[in-house]
Amino acid sequence: MAARRRVRQLTTTGDVRWLTDELSTEEPLEIRVDGEPLSVTMRTPGADFDLAAGFLVTEGIISGVDEIASMRMCPHATDAAGALNVVEVTLRAQRREPMAARNFFMTSSCGVCGKASIDAVRSRSQFDVGDDSLTVSSDLLAALPGRLRAAQQVFSRTGGVHAAGLFDGVGELVCVREDVGRHNAFDKVIGWAATQRRLPLRSHLILASGRASFELTQKASMAGIPMLAAVSAPSSLAVQLAEECGLTLVGFLRGERMNVYTGHHRVVAAST
Amino acid sequence: MAARRRVRQLTTTGDVRWLTDELSTEEPLEIRVDGEPLSVTMRTPGADFDLAAGFLVTEGIISGVDEIASMRMCPHATDAAGALNVVEVTLRAQRREPMAARNFFMTSSCGVCGKASIDAVRSRSQFDVGDDSLTVSSDLLAALPGRLRAAQQVFSRTGGVHAAGLFDGVGELVCVREDVGRHNAFDKVIGWAATQRRLPLRSHLILASGRASFELTQKASMAGIPMLAAVSAPSSLAVQLAEECGLTLVGFLRGERMNVYTGHHRVVAAST
Repeated sequence: MAARRRVRQLTTTGDVRWLTDELSTEEPLEIRVDGEPLSVTMRTPGADFDLAAGFLVTEGIISGVDEIASMRMCPHATDAAGALNVVEVTLRAQRREPMAARNFFMTSSCGVCGKASIDAVRSRSQFDVGDDSLTVSSDLLAALPGRLRAAQQVFSRTGGVHAAGLFDGVGELVCVREDVGRHNAFDKVIGWAATQRRLPLRSHLILASGRASFELTQKASMAGIPMLAAVSAPSSLAVQLAEECGLTLVGFLRGERMNVYTGHHRVVAAST
Repeated sequence: MAARRRVRQLTTTGDVRWLTDELSTEEPLEIRVDGEPLSVTMRTPGADFDLAAGFLVTEGIISGVDEIASMRMCPHATDAAGALNVVEVTLRAQRREPMAARNFFMTSSCGVCGKASIDAVRSRSQFDVGDDSLTVSSDLLAALPGRLRAAQQVFSRTGGVHAAGLFDGVGELVCVREDVGRHNAFDKVIGWAATQRRLPLRSHLILASGRASFELTQKASMAGIPMLAAVSAPSSLAVQLAEECGLTLVGFLRGERMNVYTGHHRVVAAST
């Protein structure tokens, strides 16, 4: 999941040296469903079946892995280096609607206004996170970024990937996935959980190594995860969607502090 | 470009207080060309015409703004809050190929393997950056992230947006744009330059506040920018594309240091 490269390092004092840098790998992955191209995403290779399964779940194409008959890497579609970049998914049943009638990228599926997007997501999600009784303390939350970082193997070598970490209610790291695309890291985690038949992910929380966007909030909602925490800032639409779904959104989870934007009842102060 | 929200801030010592946080605004923008929906992107409102023009240039739909007859915000497409989220572009001439035959998201236009993607981009770019004679010194480069950050109005309030800064060969900041999507920040800068009839952006460099992906490298190439610098890590495919295009790629431009991955001849050590 990392490529080595000789790089020239310069400093402002005029020093120059050559060193070997490890790059996070970015390659396109095409997901085909029943022989039809569904999407192409730029991703870090590895956990491709999890990524494909997670994408199908978070886009609402399937409700669980029982709807998947088989997944395989297409052996005929290789790039010059022989990399396998096509996952072929075969579904068990007929899809409920023709795929051509849908837009599968989050950016294209969200409609033309924030409110419409939110309504679309809410009506599509099969899980209600609003009734989940998860509660965590602020000191437990504060410990999670360190646990996620410690588990990030690719980041420690390249400094160039996002991570998603799935934690249970006592702060145990259940699954971590890394990717150049943060939406892929989320799909890999959710796809792994789907494959383990753990959906909906009640009483769990998912931690993003960066910012919380509308898209990540949507994916958490689609997997039934009641809490999304992010090391950096949330966007306005992430907060709006979280509020409408009843999802707890925590941002700026760094050091000793955190901001709770929505779903306040799930985060209790450390000393109470 | 920022929305205010009351948030509950907790600390690990049990302190709880309510404060007002400013959120970076994220709203969908639909771009329509000649009445036909072309793309929907999640963006920070503002500079929407620049974003639309830049997107059309970096996707290779148009070669410059002379091909645009008009752009307007669609007054009929508003969300519940009355926000305008649709740009209607009318082109002067017939498009050379039917739009339905193309995929307009970078993630869907890149083909199924890295090599194919790179070939597609190289053949589509109308500008050759390989022959550009720009050279900059390492100490000039090291000063740029500070200049970009100083110009980031939204980031200073929200901590939640990416930025792209266009600099000339002596390190002067020519244009800065912020967005929740880094690709949008690039499109806004490039669209601004297109509107100013400054394409190709010879002897300029573009600085990304985060990581350098394939997509950002592609956009730089499409605008004829010979150097892309990033505060964080580049991906493997960004490096590969930069090398094939003859573009200089600088990563980890932080503090006193930087790594030059490709196009070494354009970066000279400070003391030479």
